[in-house]
Amino acid sequence: MTMMKAAVFVEPGRIELQDKPIPEVGPNDALLRITTTTICGTDIHILKGEYPVERGLTIGHEPVGIIEKLGSNVKGYQEGQRVIAGAICPSFTSYACQDGAPSQDGGACGCHGYKPMGGWRFGNTLDGTQAEYVLVPDAQANLAPVPDALSDEQVLMCPDIMSTGFAGAERANIKIGDIVVIFAQGPIGLCATAGAKLRGASCIIAVDGVDSRLEIARQMGADVTLNFKNVDVVDEILKLTGGRGVDAAIEALGTQLTFEQALRVLKPGGTLSSLGVYSQDLSIPLGAFHAGLGDHILVTSLCPGGKERMRRLLNVVASGRADFGALVTHHFALDDIEAAYDLFGHQRDGVLKVAIKP
Amino acid sequence: MTMMKAAVFVEPGRIELQDKPIPEVGPNDALLRITTTTICGTDIHILKGEYPVERGLTIGHEPVGIIEKLGSNVKGYQEGQRVIAGAICPSFTSYACQDGAPSQDGGACGCHGYKPMGGWRFGNTLDGTQAEYVLVPDAQANLAPVPDALSDEQVLMCPDIMSTGFAGAERANIKIGDIVVIFAQGPIGLCATAGAKLRGASCIIAVDGVDSRLEIARQMGADVTLNFKNVDVVDEILKLTGGRGVDAAIEALGTQLTFEQALRVLKPGGTLSSLGVYSQDLSIPLGAFHAGLGDHILVTSLCPGGKERMRRLLNVVASGRADFGALVTHHFALDDIEAAYDLFGHQRDGVLKVAIKP
Amino acid sequence: MTMMKAAVFVEPGRIELQDKPIPEVGPNDALLRITTTTICGTDIHILKGEYPVERGLTIGHEPVGIIEKLGSNVKGYQEGQRVIAGAICPSFTSYACQDGAPSQDGGACGCHGYKPMGGWRFGNTLDGTQAEYVLVPDAQANLAPVPDALSDEQVLMCPDIMSTGFAGAERANIKIGDIVVIFAQGPIGLCATAGAKLRGASCIIAVDGVDSRLEIARQMGADVTLNFKNVDVVDEILKLTGGRGVDAAIEALGTQLTFEQALRVLKPGGTLSSLGVYSQDLSIPLGAFHAGLGDHILVTSLCPGGKERMRRLLNVVASGRADFGALVTHHFALDDIEAAYDLFGHQRDGVLKVAIKP
Amino acid sequence: MTMMKAAVFVEPGRIELQDKPIPEVGPNDALLRITTTTICGTDIHILKGEYPVERGLTIGHEPVGIIEKLGSNVKGYQEGQRVIAGAICPSFTSYACQDGAPSQDGGACGCHGYKPMGGWRFGNTLDGTQAEYVLVPDAQANLAPVPDALSDEQVLMCPDIMSTGFAGAERANIKIGDIVVIFAQGPIGLCATAGAKLRGASCIIAVDGVDSRLEIARQMGADVTLNFKNVDVVDEILKLTGGRGVDAAIEALGTQLTFEQALRVLKPGGTLSSLGVYSQDLSIPLGAFHAGLGDHILVTSLCPGGKERMRRLLNVVASGRADFGALVTHHFALDDIEAAYDLFGHQRDGVLKVAIKP
Repeated sequence: MTMMKAAVFVEPGRIELQDKPIPEVGPNDALLRITTTTICGTDIHILKGEYPVERGLTIGHEPVGIIEKLGSNVKGYQEGQRVIAGAICPSFTSYACQDGAPSQDGGACGCHGYKPMGGWRFGNTLDGTQAEYVLVPDAQANLAPVPDALSDEQVLMCPDIMSTGFAGAERANIKIGDIVVIFAQGPIGLCATAGAKLRGASCIIAVDGVDSRLEIARQMGADVTLNFKNVDVVDEILKLTGGRGVDAAIEALGTQLTFEQALRVLKPGGTLSSLGVYSQDLSIPLGAFHAGLGDHILVTSLCPGGKERMRRLLNVVASGRADFGALVTHHFALDDIEAAYDLFGHQRDGVLKVAIKP
Repeated sequence: MTMMKAAVFVEPGRIELQDKPIPEVGPNDALLRITTTTICGTDIHILKGEYPVERGLTIGHEPVGIIEKLGSNVKGYQEGQRVIAGAICPSFTSYACQDGAPSQDGGACGCHGYKPMGGWRFGNTLDGTQAEYVLVPDAQANLAPVPDALSDEQVLMCPDIMSTGFAGAERANIKIGDIVVIFAQGPIGLCATAGAKLRGASCIIAVDGVDSRLEIARQMGADVTLNFKNVDVVDEILKLTGGRGVDAAIEALGTQLTFEQALRVLKPGGTLSSLGVYSQDLSIPLGAFHAGLGDHILVTSLCPGGKERMRRLLNVVASGRADFGALVTHHFALDDIEAAYDLFGHQRDGVLKVAIKP
Repeated sequence: MTMMKAAVFVEPGRIELQDKPIPEVGPNDALLRITTTTICGTDIHILKGEYPVERGLTIGHEPVGIIEKLGSNVKGYQEGQRVIAGAICPSFTSYACQDGAPSQDGGACGCHGYKPMGGWRFGNTLDGTQAEYVLVPDAQANLAPVPDALSDEQVLMCPDIMSTGFAGAERANIKIGDIVVIFAQGPIGLCATAGAKLRGASCIIAVDGVDSRLEIARQMGADVTLNFKNVDVVDEILKLTGGRGVDAAIEALGTQLTFEQALRVLKPGGTLSSLGVYSQDLSIPLGAFHAGLGDHILVTSLCPGGKERMRRLLNVVASGRADFGALVTHHFALDDIEAAYDLFGHQRDGVLKVAIKP
Repeated sequence: MTMMKAAVFVEPGRIELQDKPIPEVGPNDALLRITTTTICGTDIHILKGEYPVERGLTIGHEPVGIIEKLGSNVKGYQEGQRVIAGAICPSFTSYACQDGAPSQDGGACGCHGYKPMGGWRFGNTLDGTQAEYVLVPDAQANLAPVPDALSDEQVLMCPDIMSTGFAGAERANIKIGDIVVIFAQGPIGLCATAGAKLRGASCIIAVDGVDSRLEIARQMGADVTLNFKNVDVVDEILKLTGGRGVDAAIEALGTQLTFEQALRVLKPGGTLSSLGVYSQDLSIPLGAFHAGLGDHILVTSLCPGGKERMRRLLNVVASGRADFGALVTHHFALDDIEAAYDLFGHQRDGVLKVAIKP
């Protein structure tokens, strides 16, 4: 009973299920028995070797599970309780955390405390969630109890997808009555679409190249959907807004094209909220940027974590304000995770998100 | 070497120096050997029995000291290092802390995590700093190293007075070119005056009844000083602003009169930032409140804590942007703390703040 | 054709339909032929003499109408176009307007430009909308075209009720996942309830004493409704939030009781957003105020106006995000406005809002 | 007396003094007799044909003058009064103006009201200030009286340089205790340096290649100055901040290099505030951008205008909080403006700004 199965990064191109010891629990940790987890686009980057992690690391950063064991300093939880933790799992004690940037947490450094993306630890700098067990560091700050009425599938999007997508909307400075466009309607874009609705946008334009995703975008709150294979997206949006442009544009893919289109349809004074993970230098076109005089705001966001964030997202799900159950299109046992990677990595069969159950 | 001297609340009217055991250090704690501390107005309320604390509690919440011993989980510091900690010493892991209200920290409660003023622990719910040693809880989040070039006296105001006074200015929504008034120029009001200058107010009006304090207010940045014994403060401020009122009014005393005057001189759309600790129900006069239609903002603030806050305040001192050394008017040994209470409590001899040294 | 009918304040207790000249149109004005207007609670205060206006003034501040004549400097509109203007009709050129407080517009004063509630001109300092025609000052800044697809009744709430109620929610600092309570579910409270939903609150608690209003509150987005005749509202809300309190409380009535309850259920660090028009000094209870140390924000709001505000609210109606058609419970001809005042003033027959048509 | 002298754009490479009719005054206009104006870097772009304006247009956008004649609707001013107006002169009535973007004012369009940089009219779309007289449009919103105690030279920076530079600091989200770097110490960069100090930065790093400008930067508030000819700026700043990076970086030149350096020294979660006018597409380096996951904010700003803005800047000058008199290094008569262009355009003789007097 001291060993567990875990999906491990072996080398570029290979993630395999292996046996590993169940981790020891320190005073500020909690050990979760994973009941459901999932695969993220970032995991595919890891698999391909595009995002480097240590060989032998357990992958995955989206945990739903049962508290198996609590560290001696962790109070207010019970073993046996069902919880989630954010994909980003900051200490909340560092300078960065106290300075409004917990996702950029550099941890216990006496002087500086910043590290780009440092709050992301599961499946990045610590063993992750695609396993039978995961150790949650700084558990006091990161465990959020799941209401009994909600299924694992209903809350599976909270740790990353919802938190990221909503952040894209929250940081887009949306006001009641805004026109907002969201470029790309993958899982994160769909959550950004729902987030734009929750912040009061009265006209939401969703852009993608897959009609079935645009259909789901409508369920999430899109008023207008544009398939970039059928229309010139920039022209169409400028036409829809009478040439004025949108109040906010959310980029949810990570390419030069979508970034640039987002800027081209943005009103002077508007906000471009970028969620995508880019893989090359970005170019800002001079004209769309009004030579730097457009009073634009460009904001990037990494997924917010922490138990308060998770508590809020759980409330959104529990209240029925947003329902992302439809995003879970496929189920796999942990034993079959390699097949799940294959399906998800190739985006076959209309997959949006897969539920993985040990 | 296991006992220490500590100023203890015995009963209303009596704070005495007693012997107490030096505290045990848990994994997330740090033990400081106090080198300098001070007495706050709140301590006088405790002494008088107006603010209830447990009998036997060590009083005081403003520590400058040397790390004597670090808990096993506290990283990035060294024993022997000189540090400060905020008067407010939150866990930074609770829901309240992650929700933007660390001073209202309810601690390790699984569900709710809020407690009014709960971040204030030294000399309130835990043994305080008027002692030879103090135990800092959640030390990872609360210890801020002091640059060698700064004396204890120079940084003694950081833990409470500067943090509180600056918060009054920071939360007053001050913009460059604002007219700001600060009611009362005790230690906190003087720091609020300095804070208003740091935020860009171009006309700062300081109000008090003691000319020597108004003199210091000028050093802190006041452009105009009004002694309420000599002028009708409300009339004078309305005259100074051509009847328009001030952009922001900071209340730094905690009385009906100053609160009400702050509102009466506030422009429609302005912010009243209240720092005072009130001792009775407040009345909002209907006329000055424009019957609730004045687009007013009224904000209250408890002293912000945490190592990032302390780091910033230390930077302000180190840069020479503000200098509160002049506020330390008297020095006492810890052995003479009862005399210090007597002087400070009766506001004799022009006292502003006293330095207490074990 | 130079005379029109208008509802005129004659003396306390008497508003009468009288004949008046149709106003002359200056270069920055527009003359509207009113097609629909309504009566507001404020008009009842005027009728009773509780809010003083000049005798002979035409009452009413909520216009839907057709542009009859445009001033020579007003560009971009056509005579014959259907428009609305806000109840608050600022110049947008004064210091107050440029300083973020257009509703407190003091107009064309070279030096100061502030006047409490000065942006409210219709039926307050200028002839109002309960007439066949109304003159809109600073028309360039205030006329908002109504989309053809929307009926007068659908947009009748935009000029005041929606703008005010939404402002209560917008200024309450609501974040996704918040718990928000709205005290009183009259027309403004109902709009605040809808506004809280539009800003992303995931649990909305509506309080009133009339079950039929609570029923409409549910349609507007309330998750929980509390009839204060049946339950102790404060106890119930604290129970619902596990003792923590709500993130934001909106007061939409203007009484000591509701204001005080709003504060008593507010979490430390929370925002009390007040919309009510108070008629006496308010008392802030010391305990609920945490003696001034609760990091509370208290904000008051007067209805925002201007064509951009109206444009946004029209977009909300057009998108179907909120539907306030149900608030128009009764219709009257302008000739019968005295009967309408009688019904509305006595709150008979379940009246929420009346549509008045010349 | 109906003709005046004006500096006119003839063709690329030629700005000449010509005779033009003194403009007619419409009801919302004011005619100023210019007493002092200046040349801006933008004017040099116009001269060179890099920024296109109509041939025959009078250049210049920084007016200090005397009201010669007021339009019939302009209230609260007197003919003979000394005033300034902002370089950006918005109507304040358009949708863009009411939506928080007055500098992007599209004017009196019924539907949309946005135009990139549309608030800039003097010397761009209307005749400018390098003339004996200038017509101020929407004068009610744009004229700001100058206190008698201030000289023309003291207030000459308000219309553009101060307003722009301060905006760079205001929009950089500076908090008390921040470390801020400003790239380039020309007139705008120097004002941004002063602005960073006014917002509470406790460590200000100024970067330029000219030691005499760095010397002035110190007077404006810089704590550290770096000459990029002597040190590797990025390395040096990272060293100064212990590898953490700065809280905010202000770009005040408009080149790829300075933009990129600003990003490279920015902490995760920090703000890059860009003031420069760029002349080519910008590239965002992937690494410094943390692939879009750094929680960065990038904000651009066009000079804010309007009488309230000018009033605040005049207050800053009057209070002595900042003194930009030293920036006026040379004086010319309007008759000699071609020589002034020659000097300023070639940056000879240590010129910062020139005062031009008709």
